[in-house]
Amino acid sequence: MGRPSASERKPYNMDAIVDVAVQVFLRRGYDGASLDQVAEAAGITKASIYYHASGKEALLARGVGRALDALFAVLDEPAAQSGPAIDRLRHVMRRTVEITATRLPEVALLLRVRGNTPTERSLVARRREFDHLVATIVAQAQAAGEVRADLDAGLVTRLLFGMLNSITEWYRPGGGLSAKDIVAAATRIAFDGLK
Amino acid sequence: MGRPSASERKPYNMDAIVDVAVQVFLRRGYDGASLDQVAEAAGITKASIYYHASGKEALLARGVGRALDALFAVLDEPAAQSGPAIDRLRHVMRRTVEITATRLPEVALLLRVRGNTPTERSLVARRREFDHLVATIVAQAQAAGEVRADLDAGLVTRLLFGMLNSITEWYRPGGGLSAKDIVAAATRIAFDGLK
Repeated sequence: MGRPSASERKPYNMDAIVDVAVQVFLRRGYDGASLDQVAEAAGITKASIYYHASGKEALLARGVGRALDALFAVLDEPAAQSGPAIDRLRHVMRRTVEITATRLPEVALLLRVRGNTPTERSLVARRREFDHLVATIVAQAQAAGEVRADLDAGLVTRLLFGMLNSITEWYRPGGGLSAKDIVAAATRIAFDGLK
Repeated sequence: MGRPSASERKPYNMDAIVDVAVQVFLRRGYDGASLDQVAEAAGITKASIYYHASGKEALLARGVGRALDALFAVLDEPAAQSGPAIDRLRHVMRRTVEITATRLPEVALLLRVRGNTPTERSLVARRREFDHLVATIVAQAQAAGEVRADLDAGLVTRLLFGMLNSITEWYRPGGGLSAKDIVAAATRIAFDGLK
């Protein structure tokens, strides 16, 4: 994504502050976290944060925005735009696992946003819009007879993405499992079932 | 579970305090929540809470314990104890959905416990023990040739329960969906797949 690595990063740039803010929000909960704690974790002053961001909500929007931007970009990829709906669904599921594995903190934070402030409500609305667009692909696959049509498309989408989202709870990069292993297992369960 | 309903409940009993504490912990995050906030939400004094519970950790243990006790009790049910492993797995999945639907706040809180204190670590350990026992049933079903054996049993368990656990994110009792609808969709996806 063109973000500099930790070693190249200048201490006060916006991306580096967002990295730290995401970690602090995950650890303490967004409501419980303060800008003072973000500043302390980043080793800078609160004034330095205000130089880059208008406040806590702006940092949340940037952090969660990274996950949402990456997920929405998937829907614009050629493999999500044309071809049988079942293949488009498979592509979106695969890319969602890959994005979750590479942007684990941002996706974890996205899943915890609850919508108490206008910023949070707008992030929740974008997440719902993504879910809705995926449910449309599921419904198209059902209409085309490519997947079973005896289950509600919205419910199927929630269950499938519940399965994929759970990755944020237990996946640790560099552990025994790769994103590829998870994609293989999740898509086999989803499309072919365990039997 | 023998818990009195809201109308019968005496204002200061332990169960009623735990009900309120679970809600406060969910809303503010366990780390961010204080006993003062629990007392205020319950409309009682902090001294009244201390009459029943030694502190915040004890309330968390009781609240999350309700979910864990109910889940472990499932593993002792006859249908989880004997018969083909695939049927035992199906039973555990069905009962997990039912317990999640009826104890939504307690299960949601269980899924958010992160393990910063000895109490939290012990709750996380009990949850892992449950996951491990379910993974054993998956492995037995694989060994018996009842479900596909080309996927790691632990990974399958995590994905299946990720799907079921996501219910806490979107299920609202009294909405259009019943626990039975969710059981039907989740078990069809899990065992037969979408195709």
